[in-house]
Amino acid sequence: MSKIIDGKAVAEKVLAECVDEIQQLKNNGVTPGLAVVLVGEDPASKVYVGSKVRKCAELGLHSRKIELPADASQADVLAVVQELNEDPLIHGILVQSPPPPQIDEDAIVKAIDPAKDVDGFHPENVAKLALEDASGFVPCTPSGCMRLLKEAGVETSGAEAVVIGRSMIVGKPMALLLMSKQGNATVTVAHSRTKELAEVCRRADIIVAAIGMPEFVTADMVKEGAAVIDVGINRVEDPSAKRGYRLVGDVAYDEVAAKCSAITPVPGGVGPMTIAMLISNTIKAARQSVS
Amino acid sequence: MSKIIDGKAVAEKVLAECVDEIQQLKNNGVTPGLAVVLVGEDPASKVYVGSKVRKCAELGLHSRKIELPADASQADVLAVVQELNEDPLIHGILVQSPPPPQIDEDAIVKAIDPAKDVDGFHPENVAKLALEDASGFVPCTPSGCMRLLKEAGVETSGAEAVVIGRSMIVGKPMALLLMSKQGNATVTVAHSRTKELAEVCRRADIIVAAIGMPEFVTADMVKEGAAVIDVGINRVEDPSAKRGYRLVGDVAYDEVAAKCSAITPVPGGVGPMTIAMLISNTIKAARQSVS
Repeated sequence: MSKIIDGKAVAEKVLAECVDEIQQLKNNGVTPGLAVVLVGEDPASKVYVGSKVRKCAELGLHSRKIELPADASQADVLAVVQELNEDPLIHGILVQSPPPPQIDEDAIVKAIDPAKDVDGFHPENVAKLALEDASGFVPCTPSGCMRLLKEAGVETSGAEAVVIGRSMIVGKPMALLLMSKQGNATVTVAHSRTKELAEVCRRADIIVAAIGMPEFVTADMVKEGAAVIDVGINRVEDPSAKRGYRLVGDVAYDEVAAKCSAITPVPGGVGPMTIAMLISNTIKAARQSVS
Repeated sequence: MSKIIDGKAVAEKVLAECVDEIQQLKNNGVTPGLAVVLVGEDPASKVYVGSKVRKCAELGLHSRKIELPADASQADVLAVVQELNEDPLIHGILVQSPPPPQIDEDAIVKAIDPAKDVDGFHPENVAKLALEDASGFVPCTPSGCMRLLKEAGVETSGAEAVVIGRSMIVGKPMALLLMSKQGNATVTVAHSRTKELAEVCRRADIIVAAIGMPEFVTADMVKEGAAVIDVGINRVEDPSAKRGYRLVGDVAYDEVAAKCSAITPVPGGVGPMTIAMLISNTIKAARQSVS
């Protein structure tokens, strides 16, 4: 019997906590503000940006949406970032990824004031994560995964965790969180060069799959009773679906769900957490700006 | 039959490469310069600082040794760091650890110009390591370990590596190096909270022991044919020794040596690499200062 980790419900819980914190900040004369910068016309990015801005409005946060044309220059984007860095009503800045190819995303991230870097990608925040300095901003997806584990009652301390994927967006920060004094897990980072990946995964009490390969983690790779966090969101063709495709994670859900003790579905698992952690980071940025 | 990894010989090789690079830099009018700051009278620290300065002289590097009294204030140390940051003849700055208790070491590290942070402890360099930005400075001990593995012909790519210890001086940077595109190992970080540590270690093709517990890693924890890097330097009482103690590593050398394919002795393994990598980092800093 598997326990489905309801990402929507946990995200609602996080956002409910946010509502309280927003009220406290407002009582002190501060309305947390988030700026979202969208460069170009990528339809998926438009959807993401729209829902972030909508969520801000819902919660009573101040927000700004800045849209730049697809042919915006690096200097155009940097000028916007600079203006937002200086805007006292903005506490969090997010430049929607991926930008068009003429934009150097690394340079943009570095230009964001680290105190407003609610995505947690600025080198100063990367270092704070590695150094376990709690004043930093942790990237939203891994911090969302940690919260899901906690809410599902999965003990990380002393557990064997296997993180599949070593990106700086998910894999590495997830590993750093799990191995920190906060997580205390024994962490293995597996990746494309890992031999015997199935064997490595079978050791895990906790699997975090972040490889971007549809239904890559199969039941034979999962220990009976393990907890499985599926970060992947992949489109696979499906003529029977209305849009011609369906969304699947990096985990073969049905067969793994039958074997594990807890699992996040796709969609409805990690996905909803991302925006909740973004709002949470924005509130933290606002709080730290006045302390 | 075990292969002893001769850290002295590898360090000599690294330093021989350094000599060539120093000559090239000098031909271009740049003499790499290292400043070592010693606060207080700790005897071990004095020895370390002395040998660093001596090595600089031997190799024709410019060096400065700045000694501050044991009761120096934070402001005193910061003033020295600031002066060194601005000294155009100094490319690398090292403040010998540990400073006296009144000194906030973290704040000192952050005050060092990251471009001169040859210890690799500044957050900017921590981030560069995590982000695999080769312009950063990698802490000397883990980079020395990587070089030892390479020189011993130990293939890291695809290997299972277990790092015991999760400090920011050794364990975490070592794990980041091993899991990077440069290392490509499947890395597990084990630590005080790891259950079944022996079992975890037995999986390893490569063990890096950095826990600071004398002879902690015993033969039963090591897979036949594994490579073992021993970062520990521990004093254990020994009435038969002249000084009343002897130095041992984190690995029970004799019994593990009989089982593994390659091992670093203590002393004479990782130790000599540290200073070689420090010199190497100083040269890199000098090179980057003129490019």
